[in-house]
Amino acid sequence: MIRLLKSRTDLALQIGRLKQDMGKGVTDRRREDELREDVRSLCRELGMSESLGARFLNFLLNESVSVQSTGISTHMDIFMRAKSLEAQGRHIVHMEVGEPDFAPPDVVRGSMTDAFDRGFTRYGPAGGMPQFRDALARYASKNFGADVSPSGVMVTPGGRFAVYLAISLLDPGDEIIVIDPAWPAYAQCAQSSGVKVTTIHTDMAGGWEPSAEQVKEAAGPGTRMLVLNYPNNPTGKVLSAHAQDEIVGAASDRGLYILSDEIYWQYAKPGWKSVLGSGYDKSIVVQSFSKSHAMTGFRVGYAMARPDVIGSMVARQAMLMACVAEPVQYAAMQALGADTDARSQTIMSRLDVISDMAKKMGLEFVRPDGAMYLFVRIGRDGTRLARDLLERGVAVAPGEAFGDYRDYIRISACQNEETLIKGMNIIYGNLGNRHG
Amino acid sequence: MIRLLKSRTDLALQIGRLKQDMGKGVTDRRREDELREDVRSLCRELGMSESLGARFLNFLLNESVSVQSTGISTHMDIFMRAKSLEAQGRHIVHMEVGEPDFAPPDVVRGSMTDAFDRGFTRYGPAGGMPQFRDALARYASKNFGADVSPSGVMVTPGGRFAVYLAISLLDPGDEIIVIDPAWPAYAQCAQSSGVKVTTIHTDMAGGWEPSAEQVKEAAGPGTRMLVLNYPNNPTGKVLSAHAQDEIVGAASDRGLYILSDEIYWQYAKPGWKSVLGSGYDKSIVVQSFSKSHAMTGFRVGYAMARPDVIGSMVARQAMLMACVAEPVQYAAMQALGADTDARSQTIMSRLDVISDMAKKMGLEFVRPDGAMYLFVRIGRDGTRLARDLLERGVAVAPGEAFGDYRDYIRISACQNEETLIKGMNIIYGNLGNRHG
Repeated sequence: MIRLLKSRTDLALQIGRLKQDMGKGVTDRRREDELREDVRSLCRELGMSESLGARFLNFLLNESVSVQSTGISTHMDIFMRAKSLEAQGRHIVHMEVGEPDFAPPDVVRGSMTDAFDRGFTRYGPAGGMPQFRDALARYASKNFGADVSPSGVMVTPGGRFAVYLAISLLDPGDEIIVIDPAWPAYAQCAQSSGVKVTTIHTDMAGGWEPSAEQVKEAAGPGTRMLVLNYPNNPTGKVLSAHAQDEIVGAASDRGLYILSDEIYWQYAKPGWKSVLGSGYDKSIVVQSFSKSHAMTGFRVGYAMARPDVIGSMVARQAMLMACVAEPVQYAAMQALGADTDARSQTIMSRLDVISDMAKKMGLEFVRPDGAMYLFVRIGRDGTRLARDLLERGVAVAPGEAFGDYRDYIRISACQNEETLIKGMNIIYGNLGNRHG
Repeated sequence: MIRLLKSRTDLALQIGRLKQDMGKGVTDRRREDELREDVRSLCRELGMSESLGARFLNFLLNESVSVQSTGISTHMDIFMRAKSLEAQGRHIVHMEVGEPDFAPPDVVRGSMTDAFDRGFTRYGPAGGMPQFRDALARYASKNFGADVSPSGVMVTPGGRFAVYLAISLLDPGDEIIVIDPAWPAYAQCAQSSGVKVTTIHTDMAGGWEPSAEQVKEAAGPGTRMLVLNYPNNPTGKVLSAHAQDEIVGAASDRGLYILSDEIYWQYAKPGWKSVLGSGYDKSIVVQSFSKSHAMTGFRVGYAMARPDVIGSMVARQAMLMACVAEPVQYAAMQALGADTDARSQTIMSRLDVISDMAKKMGLEFVRPDGAMYLFVRIGRDGTRLARDLLERGVAVAPGEAFGDYRDYIRISACQNEETLIKGMNIIYGNLGNRHG
């Protein structure tokens, strides 16, 4: 078998070089699918486990695709550079990170002392404090168009960890579909779990809208999950209920999990609909207190799914960290009752301010339906521009962090209007566009 | 290749049945090592990557060893049953969990409000707040016999997550050595990362002491890490500095990482020495505020290692959760200055109380050097006894959770003396031992 493996590897290397010469990508979806079917029928013929055959093929395929360490620049790299410039006394306008500049709701301030006095300083259930799960279930049932039971929700240390837990439901060699442009964490979490990523490309011309057809095409026999994220980071796109239902239907036809990251739901124009509302029983919806309650530094989020799915995710969380910090859960439980409408309006009006400015400046973008970003095509290398802008005192996120969008930047609306206007003017000055 | 895989799988099945008939275990260390060496030399002969060959062999070996879902009972199962009995109005003496009954240090109470007022409510560096890392480095340098720099320490959401991050440094198919009896999380984290676990068995007759010789024997070509945990959970064993240095030497000869879980260090008789003090540069030491500062529910711990090793662990933490909750870090930073000597004395004197009682009762155990448990041989099924005891109002941990120790139970000294005496009397009554 080792000898055959050697032949296969040598062959893969040669094919790889040929593909490169022909300008083709490393993977070929259709060829892979044929190969999978061949393996499947050979397994049946030999009376061997099909699942063993599939895992074996994935082992070979993963070895063939060389892992590319592309050194892609993300908003966090820019953030870190910005912080080090600030440490040198420079003033930086932060339009790179998605962190509201508000304080958390007032009720959070004293809640930690309450937690101490009430003894919420001990180990608790891995899925969250029972009273908090109850409160989240009520809140979700009120806001997301579905009946959520306490056993259908779990508390996580931030939305990011909920995404990781959901992807951990899959086995190494399984595949997920991510719709680009996308927050890089989906692909990172998948790759770290040995899960393959297939991407659907959307573009500005198409209004950043993916189609059910694209989902059907992208789904192969090894595909087990589709990731959705609306309101979208970085484009601000919100799908119409009709378009979303069609995509959910396509995923449902293939029996895929839908991992729906909805952490920007409070920053959306009317018309947004949670995937929970579709009633599809393989939905896993991720939420967070980071954006809606300006509690980024508390690292608290939650996931909602069928109780057995939540049960598997809770078991993994129990193994990795026992539970989420109880004082943090207690604080978030208090925050859940706070009125966040004013914050939502503020973010939406800031988004309008930078959208109006960007339009006047003649920048190319699709006006966002929600979230807190503009995703702008700048007609040149976005990573280089982000570095140049940082020298001039404004931090933005390079487009390549979100997929194959090297001539884009993402501009975040998390500062006050005056600061945003200042930042936009610096960006405009640097772009040298005068046709606005 | 698929046909050969089928032949191999059929053969593995037959061999497995034969082994079972002969009363042998599923894995055979020496045979595996020979196989590894064969694959290695074949790779060299063919001019193929040895690492690819090794990964391929691991794939085949992992497929051969059927994953056993043994339904082992842990202290957490008992804890959950105890909680549900309490919810029905029953009174339970908790001698199953390692959770001190103290409150956190007083300074923690108001620290959360301070954190709010000072704006520690935002995203921070993934490795921890810089001022907290500085404080931890100073604290470690003072207490652990080594110079620790801020870049050589990172904050984690509890010691458990630090263990996971350390094991994540390895690749699937690598192996770690765990010394039984052991806290189950080491093996669980390894298995969830596709890392193989080799165990060293220690016993009561040998005073729970592993030897450097055992480490050398257990280490094969695929072994990359040795896990140490002194003061030990569940036995309370502390290695002499000499014995520990010999084991560190054996691991160092093989170039293994040493993952040393030292979270019980403040509950130890004089003579305990941190692995950090050995100066071995592949040491990774895990610490926690859970036991020393009674902050179990805050989920905050830290890891110390070479800065490049810490860097890799920080990168993974950044991907999974951005950072540890800042208000929690702030609270732990304040707690670091609190005097915890009185707590340590209390735990040690409670351990003496239950040890003295157990001795009078004629129970079989080795008097613990530290930690907060007695590991007692009871001459019958520990899991059944734990269930019986729960009906009589006392919760203990079954021995099988810690390895092949089915006729043991672990008794925890985390309640006040009066409660512990009551619990010990119930245990004694149930055991029916009258020869004390």
